[in-house]
Amino acid sequence: MNEVISLAHGNGGKYTRILIKELFYKYFDNEMLLDGQDAAVFENLEGKMAFTTDSFVVKPIFFSGGNIGTLAICGTVNDLVVSGAKPLYISAGFIIEEGFLLNKLEEIVKAMGKACLQSGVKIVTGDTKVVEKGSVDGIFINTSGIGSIIDEYEIKPIESGDKIIVTGPIGEHGTTIALERYDIKLKGNFKSDCAALTPFIEKLKGHFSSIKIMRDPTRGGLATVLNEFTEFCRLGIHLFEEDIPISAEVMAANKLLGLDPLYMACEGRMVLVVKEAESQKILESIQSIDQGKQANIIGEFVKEPQNIILIENYFGGKRVLSSLESNMLPRIC
Amino acid sequence: MNEVISLAHGNGGKYTRILIKELFYKYFDNEMLLDGQDAAVFENLEGKMAFTTDSFVVKPIFFSGGNIGTLAICGTVNDLVVSGAKPLYISAGFIIEEGFLLNKLEEIVKAMGKACLQSGVKIVTGDTKVVEKGSVDGIFINTSGIGSIIDEYEIKPIESGDKIIVTGPIGEHGTTIALERYDIKLKGNFKSDCAALTPFIEKLKGHFSSIKIMRDPTRGGLATVLNEFTEFCRLGIHLFEEDIPISAEVMAANKLLGLDPLYMACEGRMVLVVKEAESQKILESIQSIDQGKQANIIGEFVKEPQNIILIENYFGGKRVLSSLESNMLPRIC
Repeated sequence: MNEVISLAHGNGGKYTRILIKELFYKYFDNEMLLDGQDAAVFENLEGKMAFTTDSFVVKPIFFSGGNIGTLAICGTVNDLVVSGAKPLYISAGFIIEEGFLLNKLEEIVKAMGKACLQSGVKIVTGDTKVVEKGSVDGIFINTSGIGSIIDEYEIKPIESGDKIIVTGPIGEHGTTIALERYDIKLKGNFKSDCAALTPFIEKLKGHFSSIKIMRDPTRGGLATVLNEFTEFCRLGIHLFEEDIPISAEVMAANKLLGLDPLYMACEGRMVLVVKEAESQKILESIQSIDQGKQANIIGEFVKEPQNIILIENYFGGKRVLSSLESNMLPRIC
Repeated sequence: MNEVISLAHGNGGKYTRILIKELFYKYFDNEMLLDGQDAAVFENLEGKMAFTTDSFVVKPIFFSGGNIGTLAICGTVNDLVVSGAKPLYISAGFIIEEGFLLNKLEEIVKAMGKACLQSGVKIVTGDTKVVEKGSVDGIFINTSGIGSIIDEYEIKPIESGDKIIVTGPIGEHGTTIALERYDIKLKGNFKSDCAALTPFIEKLKGHFSSIKIMRDPTRGGLATVLNEFTEFCRLGIHLFEEDIPISAEVMAANKLLGLDPLYMACEGRMVLVVKEAESQKILESIQSIDQGKQANIIGEFVKEPQNIILIENYFGGKRVLSSLESNMLPRIC
């Protein structure tokens, strides 16, 4: 194999086949993919299914806690999990810049293979395009995913009094990417929270009747997910700032940069709206998983003021958490 | 809506939602998409299913016969059709350069909506990323697709004597893109063959027991598909040059440019390997459809020479049609 990706790796001919066989098949080893046809074929799945897609364009491509490959698998897996589905099959579409280092590509593909194993999914179909130098910034990856919805899970209407749970400290992915992208050196262990949410789905399925909605707060962070909730339920939200899990480091870094961690992307967290009566039990279930140890109830839905998210601080002061209009900083994930 | 795409259209906040609601929902109108969740949900499908993905990076974005949006739908639909599937659900992932004109995006999205209607598929889930100016060349689109395999269609072993059918003139997409990309003005009506292959699937399902394999000759063209066939069946192929449908214009343009239409991409053609005994009947079925009027039997599988494709011209001269190694010309589709 050459040392860099060339246009010939993307022309559908001999070098494309070498790339597929020597690299992708090595790390994405499974019968369905090795079939080598234009489409993967799978047997009928019972019940409802979920289907989702996401493109990954993160810069830097490699960061503390993962790389674009880890993100591409976890991101799509997580979109399925928050739909109440067991993630099953993933497609992977690569757009690679001519001249991209083959060993970097291998590192990404290896991370994807590992993330697949950890989250129990298979990459069953793929596509690789190579574009001229300058036509794309390094590598972009699209993953689409199919999952099988567990126990007929459904989104339910949110009511006043429903509680909001987050499964762990927020803003870690966004903050890490921002610091690394702009080469800002701060003391502290900044690391993306990038991880599959699959461990939660088994624990939560017993509580599905009390779970109104689940979401992963990626782009736009926790604040954006909460704003979407208020938009379709016509209630308000009352948050308690001190109950929102944020590490001291992430808080300090954001203060220093003039940013707000509530708008920073997470890549391994989930936000749940649950019935008040069951909220404590659900919280305990989540906390029983390693990834969920720092989970907390961060607030609740209220009738007034409608559509407004109020966040109350330690001293009782309140501010409005609005929808993200422009960018806090150049796109980071 | 602003006149150009800005980074705020991709931050997951207010402007992303405006883009989704005012543009995507307008042209991709269907219940499942309008649900607005992270994943689309559909009921259980009976039988086997096919799943495929493809990224589209064509330059120019707009060309005679279609645009990148038409291609993104037809390409994925066609990958499902050649797998013996009825195409059903499509995901659309957009990666757009900051500053891209909104009316150009609308034209692309409109073409996608039209291609969906024509081929009977629904875009049920999507994703939009906006990247900084210079990070991507205009717009890239990934589509993944799910289809329901008809009558348990399966690929069957190719045997000596099996006939090869193409459903129409080859090389039209690749030649059109090459001419437009390099601004080469030639007399003649050059137009991409970009179209969904869905009309064929209904006609062909009665012949499935006699169809060994179907493929759409996109990247790398007819020659690449035939080389893939010989690779896994260990037979040779004998082609008759005069039986291969190629328009006089496409032939002349390729001669002038020093290119070979057999390696040029098609985006609305299918190659079929069929049992000799049924080949004439299958050809007639294909020719009964408008898109298939110029279909022809172009050659057959032979025992010797193994793995070699020989193409015989009008005068009995033979040449070897090898696998594409480097590029005939810079990537064009």
